[in-house]
Amino acid sequence: MGEHDAAGDPGRLLALSDGVFAIAVTLLVLDVGVRDGLDPAGFRRALRQTVPELLAYALSFTVIAAMWRDHRRIFAGVRRVDEVVIRLTVVGLGLVALMPFPTTLLADYGGRPQAVLIYSGAVVAVDAVHLWLLRYLASRPGMLAAPRPKAETRLLTADLTLTIAVFVLSMGLAYVSPTAAKWCWLLLVAVRLGLRWARGGRSAA
Amino acid sequence: MGEHDAAGDPGRLLALSDGVFAIAVTLLVLDVGVRDGLDPAGFRRALRQTVPELLAYALSFTVIAAMWRDHRRIFAGVRRVDEVVIRLTVVGLGLVALMPFPTTLLADYGGRPQAVLIYSGAVVAVDAVHLWLLRYLASRPGMLAAPRPKAETRLLTADLTLTIAVFVLSMGLAYVSPTAAKWCWLLLVAVRLGLRWARGGRSAA
Amino acid sequence: MGEHDAAGDPGRLLALSDGVFAIAVTLLVLDVGVRDGLDPAGFRRALRQTVPELLAYALSFTVIAAMWRDHRRIFAGVRRVDEVVIRLTVVGLGLVALMPFPTTLLADYGGRPQAVLIYSGAVVAVDAVHLWLLRYLASRPGMLAAPRPKAETRLLTADLTLTIAVFVLSMGLAYVSPTAAKWCWLLLVAVRLGLRWARGGRSAA
Amino acid sequence: MGEHDAAGDPGRLLALSDGVFAIAVTLLVLDVGVRDGLDPAGFRRALRQTVPELLAYALSFTVIAAMWRDHRRIFAGVRRVDEVVIRLTVVGLGLVALMPFPTTLLADYGGRPQAVLIYSGAVVAVDAVHLWLLRYLASRPGMLAAPRPKAETRLLTADLTLTIAVFVLSMGLAYVSPTAAKWCWLLLVAVRLGLRWARGGRSAA
Repeated sequence: MGEHDAAGDPGRLLALSDGVFAIAVTLLVLDVGVRDGLDPAGFRRALRQTVPELLAYALSFTVIAAMWRDHRRIFAGVRRVDEVVIRLTVVGLGLVALMPFPTTLLADYGGRPQAVLIYSGAVVAVDAVHLWLLRYLASRPGMLAAPRPKAETRLLTADLTLTIAVFVLSMGLAYVSPTAAKWCWLLLVAVRLGLRWARGGRSAA
Repeated sequence: MGEHDAAGDPGRLLALSDGVFAIAVTLLVLDVGVRDGLDPAGFRRALRQTVPELLAYALSFTVIAAMWRDHRRIFAGVRRVDEVVIRLTVVGLGLVALMPFPTTLLADYGGRPQAVLIYSGAVVAVDAVHLWLLRYLASRPGMLAAPRPKAETRLLTADLTLTIAVFVLSMGLAYVSPTAAKWCWLLLVAVRLGLRWARGGRSAA
Repeated sequence: MGEHDAAGDPGRLLALSDGVFAIAVTLLVLDVGVRDGLDPAGFRRALRQTVPELLAYALSFTVIAAMWRDHRRIFAGVRRVDEVVIRLTVVGLGLVALMPFPTTLLADYGGRPQAVLIYSGAVVAVDAVHLWLLRYLASRPGMLAAPRPKAETRLLTADLTLTIAVFVLSMGLAYVSPTAAKWCWLLLVAVRLGLRWARGGRSAA
Repeated sequence: MGEHDAAGDPGRLLALSDGVFAIAVTLLVLDVGVRDGLDPAGFRRALRQTVPELLAYALSFTVIAAMWRDHRRIFAGVRRVDEVVIRLTVVGLGLVALMPFPTTLLADYGGRPQAVLIYSGAVVAVDAVHLWLLRYLASRPGMLAAPRPKAETRLLTADLTLTIAVFVLSMGLAYVSPTAAKWCWLLLVAVRLGLRWARGGRSAA
């Protein structure tokens, strides 16, 4: 690495990013657990109570992993970063690293509108930063090793915009029905899978 | 890195993986400890109680390290990843990052069948994902820099299948005797060491 | 990596650094949260109490991210490190990894002079080590792949010196008024942004 | 990375190692802190009680950083690793990742012989593994990109042996006087600094 790590090289920015994503995703497990020293009946009850914790874990792992996949696609082929890219990336990482907080909130208070609101707000904020990064890089082809196919930029823009729209919608729904808001998220997964299937599969790794 | 990190480059996927493995393995230590402020007798008693915690730590460190070694062997020589590989890897990481939960369960409730069942289930799930990844890559030689020797694929398949079989067996045994189930795991170590020895040692780093 | 990682290669030192920065920054979230099992009124009250925690999170994320950006600029183009550089970097990392402690202190006891004093002291210590590293490398051009522009060294020196001066000043102010001391920090952000703007923007990524 | 990461490449082993060292060293801070909600007098008292915690933090950060520096020197120039090297490294990492446990023990029960004994034992175990790794690599020059100077191997062997000797000695002393045992460690720092000075400084980065 050393000698190639000139002023604009993205190597360390990506190393920091992968580190933050890896840790944010791994810290989620600290919310899953059974207290020590319970009697058999208490143990079985506590074990059943880990089910919503495991669901919140699975949801947030999926959400943060999807953010990482977007991040990876946004930075694919980038060979030079400037201060704007670094600042935007760092702000995005600050929001990603915060995700364990809304995740715990959702696991413990999933029925309260505020928990759904804060969770959705965090996702919207990360995806808005990623959308900004994508558009910024799209208008500066000199930062890429090879021009990015227009179709890939369009696809990523569509994916991020759709996710933002669904989570904003779920923020509105949260005050009517937190449960309906969460069904919105499942709808998103279905729509994205459907879209990918319609496009013919694994074109964009 | 920068300029080589094209769309299908595995660099960041491996960086994320190594990060998750490193953190999952290091978080295990949070379960080992002695409460502050004990009197001399309480301190000695608490110190003796760290022995099962240290055993659970050693077991899970060994298990997760073995998963990492499998992961490293599966990805050795891979120069291009597609969306299927990324998704499978991420699902595997989600299960690896969860390991501190069954580890704590085993340390605190090692005599309960459910703890042994959940622990074994988590190991089986990770190894099933790794087996899937291995078979997927084996059928797509274009993703590798050089064709992988058939013997290496066979060996890895055998190792993963054997581990899955033993842990599934221990899941069945757990309800009869959690202790017998755990002796199964030691048997696995003995068999794998024996197999390796029979094959003549360090052929596969 | 392997074959290039000769005795003086900075690769692993930077990998360790990025790891420590990523973890220090991600551990900050452990201070933000709402206790489980509250009634609706208690939940709303606890949620309001996360606001100062979120502010402390945002402040420390920004501060540590700024330290990382300085670190990245100091090591840009460095192709060889000696024992002095390694030791100074490790001391700096020890102080960066400590940051979650003054951050929690500030979130919980922001009105006490000692909290402001310890927080400022930690920032001053990290920046002093970074300044030392910068000057050490500036006087050993053989360690760099290409000579660093004098303007970049001057700029970084000015940024670090200004930050140290402001935080030392805030340490003095802390005993008069902890609040005034914290306004000092906002002043710093304004001055640095102003200076950057005056220089014409993104010259130094 | 991708295409170069052939079967014996040390890249991922070093990435895992740097990750584990970075996390072990950063988790140490979780032991330093002041409880929330204290009155002014309680706050000042709690703040004074962070002093031994900070000392234990500084000691363990220094110790783990020294282990990382040894690790980096042992692997400098290694371009191929076999299964023995991987297993030894993983065992070493398992011991490094455990260090937060003896560190907390020492911070909370520094006056008890057992705490000093366990702490010293952990250090001895890590350094013994590192010594084994060093000797193993020294006898297999084919694993290195260029032959390692004999003086460097001798120097590292001496450093590791000296550290092991001092910590074994302190284990013996622990039952006579835990305080004397800890003074032993300071003696080690003085001797190592003296030796380095006598050899003329930064020959070995």
